[in-house]
Amino acid sequence: MKALLTLLVLFLSGCAQTPAIRGTGDLGIVIERASGRVAIVDTTARSVLARVDGLGDLSHASAVFSRDGRYAYVFGRDGGLTKIDLLLGRIAKRVIQAGNSIGGAISQDGRLVVAQNYTPGGIKVFDAATLELLSEVPTGSKVVGLADLPGQRFAYALFDAGEIWLTDLSNPREPRTQKFPAGRQPYDGLVTPDGRHYMAGLFGEDGIALLDAWRPEAGARKILENYGRGEEKLPVFKMPHLRGWAVAGGRAYLPAIGRHEVLVVDTATWREVGRIAVKGQPVFVMARPDSRQIWVNFAFPNNGWVQVIDTPSNQIVQTLQPGKAILHMEFTPRGEEVWLSARDDNMVGIYDTATFTRKATLAADSPSGIFFTSRAHRTGF
Amino acid sequence: MKALLTLLVLFLSGCAQTPAIRGTGDLGIVIERASGRVAIVDTTARSVLARVDGLGDLSHASAVFSRDGRYAYVFGRDGGLTKIDLLLGRIAKRVIQAGNSIGGAISQDGRLVVAQNYTPGGIKVFDAATLELLSEVPTGSKVVGLADLPGQRFAYALFDAGEIWLTDLSNPREPRTQKFPAGRQPYDGLVTPDGRHYMAGLFGEDGIALLDAWRPEAGARKILENYGRGEEKLPVFKMPHLRGWAVAGGRAYLPAIGRHEVLVVDTATWREVGRIAVKGQPVFVMARPDSRQIWVNFAFPNNGWVQVIDTPSNQIVQTLQPGKAILHMEFTPRGEEVWLSARDDNMVGIYDTATFTRKATLAADSPSGIFFTSRAHRTGF
Repeated sequence: MKALLTLLVLFLSGCAQTPAIRGTGDLGIVIERASGRVAIVDTTARSVLARVDGLGDLSHASAVFSRDGRYAYVFGRDGGLTKIDLLLGRIAKRVIQAGNSIGGAISQDGRLVVAQNYTPGGIKVFDAATLELLSEVPTGSKVVGLADLPGQRFAYALFDAGEIWLTDLSNPREPRTQKFPAGRQPYDGLVTPDGRHYMAGLFGEDGIALLDAWRPEAGARKILENYGRGEEKLPVFKMPHLRGWAVAGGRAYLPAIGRHEVLVVDTATWREVGRIAVKGQPVFVMARPDSRQIWVNFAFPNNGWVQVIDTPSNQIVQTLQPGKAILHMEFTPRGEEVWLSARDDNMVGIYDTATFTRKATLAADSPSGIFFTSRAHRTGF
Repeated sequence: MKALLTLLVLFLSGCAQTPAIRGTGDLGIVIERASGRVAIVDTTARSVLARVDGLGDLSHASAVFSRDGRYAYVFGRDGGLTKIDLLLGRIAKRVIQAGNSIGGAISQDGRLVVAQNYTPGGIKVFDAATLELLSEVPTGSKVVGLADLPGQRFAYALFDAGEIWLTDLSNPREPRTQKFPAGRQPYDGLVTPDGRHYMAGLFGEDGIALLDAWRPEAGARKILENYGRGEEKLPVFKMPHLRGWAVAGGRAYLPAIGRHEVLVVDTATWREVGRIAVKGQPVFVMARPDSRQIWVNFAFPNNGWVQVIDTPSNQIVQTLQPGKAILHMEFTPRGEEVWLSARDDNMVGIYDTATFTRKATLAADSPSGIFFTSRAHRTGF
């Protein structure tokens, strides 16, 4: 009798501990880089739901999401690939897949997770469900700028070899790769929101390599020949993140390299049509989802500032000091709020993008990247 | 003792019946119009998870989703507004809010659900959590083309009064409305994907009314003066759905009215730049999320056909016969597949958009609208 009662209590508490049934459309993660941990967050309640430890070296970490929004795949600097269950608040699976990695991507159908590696170079293809290694593409070079494209394809750039590679993983165990000369030392890449154009920024020369993934046979061509460090070779405190490029109203907004400027480029001609003076060397230049505003953060020593550009006028309409060392920004899916990580203030600030008022502050241990599950439904993230 | 055992069994079965913990990013609903029912579907497994009865008259029904992806709000023709819990597979709340309704929208922050009504006209504003009525805006006219805009705003058109109204619900109990003359008998409206331009098609005259929601003070202006039924007043078997308008690569693709054509319009100048001959009178003209393809379905008697336009060439690249009475189409969030409802074949066909092969067929009772949770994160849906 007593045993049964105990059993009953156990089962009752078992039921009680079952995580709440809830949607995943308003979830996300914040990288706590110093402690190898991520915070699972809720963008409706503006709260931290759980923390997950044991992710290794999370400097320069990034994340993608499963198509159901339940799992985050976190790529750590130490080559760790960790699948986190956002609903159960725990690690579902973790593998060390390389010695030095800087990110990854997920296929259009959500079945393949691909990591890009510095050491030993190349990309590796994993089953998104099990993290089983399905195939790899050796490159003999550091890989940068990996981005998913429609049709189970992935584009990436080879820093040492100066090439853009386009790999088709329709058959994930038999990758088919096309290779295109791109220019000296591509250092990052991005794909336009429609998944059509892949661009790689060049560190070893001025200009950007552009590949039209709808006509890859035409090869990569060079655009924006004046984009780069230029003749003077200005000191660069932090390389801008191309992944932050904003495309709004037929214009691309790019971080200048070494200069206190945001460049405005016509996406029909890929020519520069203007420059906007800003507070420092821009790092992320990100469009609010409705593309009415562009938010910009900066490299040291100006990394306590954030500026907002109004796209119809290309004027700066707001300058904020949200905290010390603003490393990353993430908009809520429909853009009514933006989350900013302030690493040296150990907090995340949440701002209303219409009024620029702070709605909430969340404690976080040296926060860097912020990633929301709505990325699961977008291309090139 | 026996009572305790029974209790234990009850609790065990209670645990067992707890719905699976799962993500909501790959969920959706299919309207089964003849039976007042919706099917809850999973786009990863390509399966029906549950069916929910008791939704009343679902002819011309549409749906929006909560920002967490857990709830669907279904607007029925009979004025019923039903909140469905997709995870528990049941009705969470249902109200009869009007006598005759044709749809609704959800605010940028997900807190307000707004219904547009024919009888008695006007819009009604509900708390998304409780469906409590917060306010209403009487119009003295049938309301059509309701669409959400950034900043808790909603745009809609008045069929009888020939106006576009823009209502700000920043304070949901005190709506603030601006009114703009638009033209004779607007019959539907849409907002561009960036949430900037609201367009209302006119039934009583040729042309389309365009309001720039970034500069509403400039008022609505008329564009595409040759768009409409024209001098000949062609018979129109089914009014096209403007909500289906596709915008791809700086071009809008519109269903012609009464003609077997899709119109191509430059979105910078809003001038017509081409026409594409198709199988019938187009109803929905929808862009695949990467905008590489436009899918078109047709009014009776050609409603067994679907055609696919390749956007770089504006050529028809595929003609399909997916079933009898194709009423609606919905792309998976990243566009690798499309779901088509075949009302008179009582099934939904799921196609690979790259190969045009059928991947699966799901039985459904007179299916019409198909809506996936990824709409929660988009503007103007």
